[in-house]
Amino acid sequence: MTRDGGLVLGGMVFYPGGEHVTSWRLPGSEPDAYLDVEYYVRFAQTLERGGFATLFIADELYVWDRFASGIDHAVNIRTEPFTLLGALSQRTEHIGLAATVSTTYNEPYHVARKLASIDHLSEGRAAWNLVTSASDEEAWNFGRDANLDHAVRYRRGAEFVDVVQGLWDSWDDDAFLYDQESGYFAKRDGLHVLDHEGEFFRVRGPLNIARPPQAHPVLFQAGASEAGRALAGAKAEGVFTLWQDDLADAQALYADYKRRAVEHGRDASSMLILPAVSPVIGDTEADALRQLDEIEELTPDRVSLDLLSHYLQTDLSDRPLDAPFEHVFDETAINQSKSVYESIRRIAAEATTLREVYRTILRRRFLPGTPEQIADWLTERYAQDAADGYMLAFSSIPVSVDRFVDQVVPELERRGVYDRAYRGDTLREHLGLARPASRYDGSAAVPAPATVDQEASA
Amino acid sequence: MTRDGGLVLGGMVFYPGGEHVTSWRLPGSEPDAYLDVEYYVRFAQTLERGGFATLFIADELYVWDRFASGIDHAVNIRTEPFTLLGALSQRTEHIGLAATVSTTYNEPYHVARKLASIDHLSEGRAAWNLVTSASDEEAWNFGRDANLDHAVRYRRGAEFVDVVQGLWDSWDDDAFLYDQESGYFAKRDGLHVLDHEGEFFRVRGPLNIARPPQAHPVLFQAGASEAGRALAGAKAEGVFTLWQDDLADAQALYADYKRRAVEHGRDASSMLILPAVSPVIGDTEADALRQLDEIEELTPDRVSLDLLSHYLQTDLSDRPLDAPFEHVFDETAINQSKSVYESIRRIAAEATTLREVYRTILRRRFLPGTPEQIADWLTERYAQDAADGYMLAFSSIPVSVDRFVDQVVPELERRGVYDRAYRGDTLREHLGLARPASRYDGSAAVPAPATVDQEASA
Ligand SMILES: Cc1cc2nc3c(=O)[nH]c(=O)nc-3n(C[C@H](O)[C@H](O)[C@H](O)COP(=O)(O)O)c2cc1C
Ligand SMILES: Cc1cc2nc3c(=O)[nH]c(=O)nc-3n(C[C@H](O)[C@H](O)[C@H](O)COP(=O)(O)O)c2cc1C
Repeated sequence: MTRDGGLVLGGMVFYPGGEHVTSWRLPGSEPDAYLDVEYYVRFAQTLERGGFATLFIADELYVWDRFASGIDHAVNIRTEPFTLLGALSQRTEHIGLAATVSTTYNEPYHVARKLASIDHLSEGRAAWNLVTSASDEEAWNFGRDANLDHAVRYRRGAEFVDVVQGLWDSWDDDAFLYDQESGYFAKRDGLHVLDHEGEFFRVRGPLNIARPPQAHPVLFQAGASEAGRALAGAKAEGVFTLWQDDLADAQALYADYKRRAVEHGRDASSMLILPAVSPVIGDTEADALRQLDEIEELTPDRVSLDLLSHYLQTDLSDRPLDAPFEHVFDETAINQSKSVYESIRRIAAEATTLREVYRTILRRRFLPGTPEQIADWLTERYAQDAADGYMLAFSSIPVSVDRFVDQVVPELERRGVYDRAYRGDTLREHLGLARPASRYDGSAAVPAPATVDQEASA
Repeated sequence: MTRDGGLVLGGMVFYPGGEHVTSWRLPGSEPDAYLDVEYYVRFAQTLERGGFATLFIADELYVWDRFASGIDHAVNIRTEPFTLLGALSQRTEHIGLAATVSTTYNEPYHVARKLASIDHLSEGRAAWNLVTSASDEEAWNFGRDANLDHAVRYRRGAEFVDVVQGLWDSWDDDAFLYDQESGYFAKRDGLHVLDHEGEFFRVRGPLNIARPPQAHPVLFQAGASEAGRALAGAKAEGVFTLWQDDLADAQALYADYKRRAVEHGRDASSMLILPAVSPVIGDTEADALRQLDEIEELTPDRVSLDLLSHYLQTDLSDRPLDAPFEHVFDETAINQSKSVYESIRRIAAEATTLREVYRTILRRRFLPGTPEQIADWLTERYAQDAADGYMLAFSSIPVSVDRFVDQVVPELERRGVYDRAYRGDTLREHLGLARPASRYDGSAAVPAPATVDQEASA
């Protein structure tokens, strides 16, 4: 089933240089520009030229120094998403602005304000990507000895969304009178006190900003574990999945998320499934494969090995690279990303040596091909119920962003599955998502604010 | 003693409409524009035209609904400072961008990142105003039953600054190599792990962003209680004081802050004293007084009374307005702003009726006069060791901002105490403040990061 507006594209930045930890070494990369706003402006404006629905700033709350190779070779500097999106709100016109938010290491009142504020500053283009933060290093920056348990993180995440969305409904859309003559700024019955008390949060409210233009900035999520999918089914309006090599696997994953949404009483079309994909675009297939080899060659073995040690929470430094890789996988002992762990388990089951495991991990995240091939693959999955669109993770920025917009986007348009025109004014309108009603709508029983209620005396 | 660069001006927004809770009712106010970025852009660009060192976004973390009049008549919507400053970084060129940060309801890792990020986005124009948050309503939005005690708040504030500044030093200025050829992005010995453990915070670090252009974004503070002044003496580079009617009082206050800085081994010139002042600018003195009357007339009595109830933490709703005001002042029982409480005690000691108390509070915060008179007052205090400059709190925005820049700024220039040209590229340079050295500079004994240290194998 295809969508009315065609497939949806998003563009992400995780490592500022591109999808891979050493993308910064690729030709055309500009590693000394990673804190320069013009670098992100160019990225955003290129995506906007390609009609991308949203850009998305991935984020983590730590420096990857678990292994010294991370300091040596990885990009450990990044701009903070909300301040960056504030800046980009003034340098773009149509594209959505999505910030990553850790629900484990934030307070809902702050996050509700910031997202509402970005939504006002951008006139309805704000979105968030809910993450629960996977590494102990993040915990150490926020007063904890270790990360919260995986299950607890997701329970907290669900409650976090509920509080944030409740706070956004603090003021009715028509609560403000701005009546200079009478002196009435707002209507008392247009204000709602949340009074939330849950397992993780006690938040009275109300929020000190008007209901956002989109009512609720769009919620993206990428949890792939059982707990993560459950949260997505209940709340997410866009889901970032991992690219599946096999079409049938991708269709099954797509169906799984949609089913979960429907089970929550939601319309299947109210949740967009957006597999993350990192195309490596070549003039020929051989050229694309050569570029992929280059990505691999520019990645020190040490980094690949240490990344594997990181994901497996096991120090593999002393293991011989070319001997058979033996490892006892036990998902229950892992408190980082369970889905990443599971994908490595599957790769290891097929590979023989340690080197082969990490090479496969590296190469699997990329999709090498010509613009036509890539457009065909993206079209096929979209047409065959495996995707509503894609979250592009560019192999290098700015080079492969330009290439995608100049070479793949026209191919998608030619195939009739994509239209770069923006539909409507807000991100929600562009995505075809309804503007949520207030939880207080039509409810006469909303408790009045707990204030000293006096007769008005303006 | 006058400063090299002349007196320093800052311009603040607290209520979006201006200094007073009902400024939005004044002629020329635009209350329906308070969430429109163009409103703030105009404000910022006007200040920049007047050569203001910085704009400053005041902030609170709640809706003032303790009394129903607050919902009726006050402005309870505001943009979130960091997202707004991100936006303004792209619409201004020279002016400093100062955000208010509550050290009671924030985490230092987040705040260090955001300020560093604004500093990079603006190429060295970020600043913060440290506040400790005065109202229980703020506590209720962050899972607490009541605010932290006043003394605890200030201890936490001091530790907060120490952590944030330590995090900014995580990477040496020359830590990044960006060496695409060798594959080395950063130098290991350019990275420092904070490993902070204190009364309130445990933060390992390092921060995931490069040292800011200003090294440490400029720190403003306004605490006026004993604890507040102690913190200012130790840390603040700019202090917002309350305007003193009496020149001698202002000089004593100025001397008190400078003395505290010197006692901390600091140069007196490394701390700027900036009294907050709200001029009401008239064509004649009578016109200015008429405008002040108008401000008063447009403020419902109920609001003035409820504000007084708020500051005194005592519900005065039932008291007759025109009977003698009797109130037992007990500073030890107050957990909100102790300095505001003390200023009301002094006013009450001279006033007779309740109405007179709140009228005096309202009128005292404004300074009515002609442009020449106001320029004279500002020049006198600057020349006579009572101020290094001023934090302007405009009685209405945009009207009185335009008036100040067009009418008072030229008068200050004529008197030779002000120069609207920007000096240097960063806010620090403009203010004549040194760029702080890293706490790790020259220290050979910096502990290496606690990582698995392997031989490099790029
Ligand atoms: C496209 C995509 C983007 C992601 N971005 C982030 C991110 O910015 N920050 C983060 O901490 N995790 C990020 N994740 C990880 C997920 O949010 C989630 O934490 C991860 O899939 C592990 O969840 P699980 O335990 O449910 O498998 C991303 C995942 C995907 C597929
Ligand atoms: C010019 C000026 C601006 C201030 N801005 C804020 C603010 O934005 N947010 C806030 O919570 N307090 C603000 N305050 C209050 C002070 O930071 C401080 O909390 C107050 O003076 C009470 O501190 P004290 O208990 O030391 O007297 C401001 C004070 C002044 C003089």
